[in-house]
Amino acid sequence: MAGFPFTIAATDGKARTGVLATPRGEIRTPAFMPVGTAGTVKALTVDQVAATGADILLGNTYHLMLRPTAERVKRLGGLHRFMRWEKPILTDSGGFQVMSLSKISKVTEESVTFQSHIDGSRHALSPERSMEIQADLLGSDIVMQLDELVALPAPPERAADAMRRSARWGQRSKNAFGERDVQNLFGIQQGGLDPALRRESADRLREIGFDGYAIGGLAVGEGHQAMCEALDFAPAMLPVERPRYLMGVGKPIDIVEAVYRGVDMFDCVLPTRSGRHGQAWTWEGPVNLKNARFAEDDAPLDPSSDVPASRDYSKAYLHHLVKAEEILGQVLLSWHNLAFFQALMAEMRAAIAAGTMEAFRTAFAARQRPSGPGTSA
Amino acid sequence: MAGFPFTIAATDGKARTGVLATPRGEIRTPAFMPVGTAGTVKALTVDQVAATGADILLGNTYHLMLRPTAERVKRLGGLHRFMRWEKPILTDSGGFQVMSLSKISKVTEESVTFQSHIDGSRHALSPERSMEIQADLLGSDIVMQLDELVALPAPPERAADAMRRSARWGQRSKNAFGERDVQNLFGIQQGGLDPALRRESADRLREIGFDGYAIGGLAVGEGHQAMCEALDFAPAMLPVERPRYLMGVGKPIDIVEAVYRGVDMFDCVLPTRSGRHGQAWTWEGPVNLKNARFAEDDAPLDPSSDVPASRDYSKAYLHHLVKAEEILGQVLLSWHNLAFFQALMAEMRAAIAAGTMEAFRTAFAARQRPSGPGTSA
Repeated sequence: MAGFPFTIAATDGKARTGVLATPRGEIRTPAFMPVGTAGTVKALTVDQVAATGADILLGNTYHLMLRPTAERVKRLGGLHRFMRWEKPILTDSGGFQVMSLSKISKVTEESVTFQSHIDGSRHALSPERSMEIQADLLGSDIVMQLDELVALPAPPERAADAMRRSARWGQRSKNAFGERDVQNLFGIQQGGLDPALRRESADRLREIGFDGYAIGGLAVGEGHQAMCEALDFAPAMLPVERPRYLMGVGKPIDIVEAVYRGVDMFDCVLPTRSGRHGQAWTWEGPVNLKNARFAEDDAPLDPSSDVPASRDYSKAYLHHLVKAEEILGQVLLSWHNLAFFQALMAEMRAAIAAGTMEAFRTAFAARQRPSGPGTSA
Repeated sequence: MAGFPFTIAATDGKARTGVLATPRGEIRTPAFMPVGTAGTVKALTVDQVAATGADILLGNTYHLMLRPTAERVKRLGGLHRFMRWEKPILTDSGGFQVMSLSKISKVTEESVTFQSHIDGSRHALSPERSMEIQADLLGSDIVMQLDELVALPAPPERAADAMRRSARWGQRSKNAFGERDVQNLFGIQQGGLDPALRRESADRLREIGFDGYAIGGLAVGEGHQAMCEALDFAPAMLPVERPRYLMGVGKPIDIVEAVYRGVDMFDCVLPTRSGRHGQAWTWEGPVNLKNARFAEDDAPLDPSSDVPASRDYSKAYLHHLVKAEEILGQVLLSWHNLAFFQALMAEMRAAIAAGTMEAFRTAFAARQRPSGPGTSA
């Protein structure tokens, strides 16, 4: 497999910045992918999402296969056309949500069988079915192998079993995906926090050969420090010439530490989910707009932004909308947060190109006050 | 009082089309005013509202005086600046919501005292206080007198009492409002369905002298037919040279019949409220997007529209969003409905100018199927 052309324009320590060139457009890395769970980045139009500078969205196979169903999306022209997003889309395999949202009936070597959290209907997800849904029915640009992951901390044997099953499912995913010109398939490294397991996983993935490599099984309860320790060794085990994607991460401080350690791609529901709950992310850390100190604060969240949500509306107005439980408050804060995450990625791309990533990282950590006044997690 | 320049460019039967020129921009009549209840047209940014062609918004004095309070809006630069809407705003007097939403403590000749539906706090609204809130604190362009209205059907004596109190409150509103260059004050005709009471009310308002005249106390339970009968005589009792505003109306068919009878301005929560409940208004009548017949309908609601909500997204996608209870469904349908209402007004303005309002009205009524398949009120 060759994969989409991936050009690393500059490196700075372990950090890299470049471009992954897909037929639907360029993805500037390090990249943050907003999550369009069920065919929508929650509360936002695609034009609003595009205005934040997002180059690629993530879609959730689990949600889409249950509703409106992958077959219906296919009949309606594929996921891009269905949701009116013309730039690249990466879909996850469905495995994570099966294990976190549904009632699992059974995990076997063949597949995961589970009950829908929506209507209780029974479904099976195998590597082959995941490939069919992602690549053939939804029409994703970047397809993820099916993997099995475990919550951390996990017994070593459990982590090893899941890693080895993920590798076997990786091979089956590859076989089912085949060779494609305009779609890529990413493998997923597992192995928990154990360097030996992460090494074995990376070696297996490399033997199979993927277009890109994800780091899976982190940000599942191990905490920021343990995650950073795993990122001290995990990314370097993956092929240097292909994109590395840290799945489901995360808070801005997590993303900065991961970029510093050589990760290229990220996704997380945090900006939209926290926006729906009245929280805004800023260079000084998260703030809760419900806090009374914003009641007469006439300044916008970011007057230098190009995005109306950040630039045009005062914190006093956002405070009012949050207090009154107005939908517009959810819209504007989701929009602002996505714009902030994209601005963060742009700043890091510039810092890596300028050779100042170490200084950026130090300054960023010093400015963020995760437990300052008016904040909440 | 002179009032904002009001130019009637064409008449067609009783119907009129023209322009009410305010310092903040021209209002093309007949005009529909989206309702920005608590400082927001629910679910939409001001840019989205402006894109529908709305020339003026309505703000609710009752909601704003309770939260964030009119005094806070004043400290933050007035309602236009607070909500980032630079075009004209009309505010209601607060009386209607006091009577429909709060627990009323007492209605006296002096004022209405009531309890907030939000926190139970006690407040009083007099004609003088309503003028202070609307004109001085919120900074409304068009201020409505405080009136008293009764649900229909009402005993004749009750309707007469409310009409006469409204006239006395109209005089007090005028006295408190005084003479202003850049703000207008509208009086409100009451009198239920009785021509003699409507005549007496109109005569009293004319003696007081207002910048515009509203028809109040309709669309409060009397039904379409009774409303049309009242509109056969009520508008003509009001000064022909000033704008006539039918408060709280309504369904497209109500608006068409009222324009046909000489009304110039309208407001209603219907487009946004029904949009939040999955309903779209179309030239063929209302349709409920939740209906399974839209599940694979790849056509947008209105491909000829300039508004993305109407033009870019398929009914199948909207169906999915409504079924999945996604916020974006509420956003897009609210946006589409406001665009439809503005398109309806534009069509009527053109029909009046062309002398074809009678034909437009007949054709419109024939196309609307209020109880067709998949509809709901």
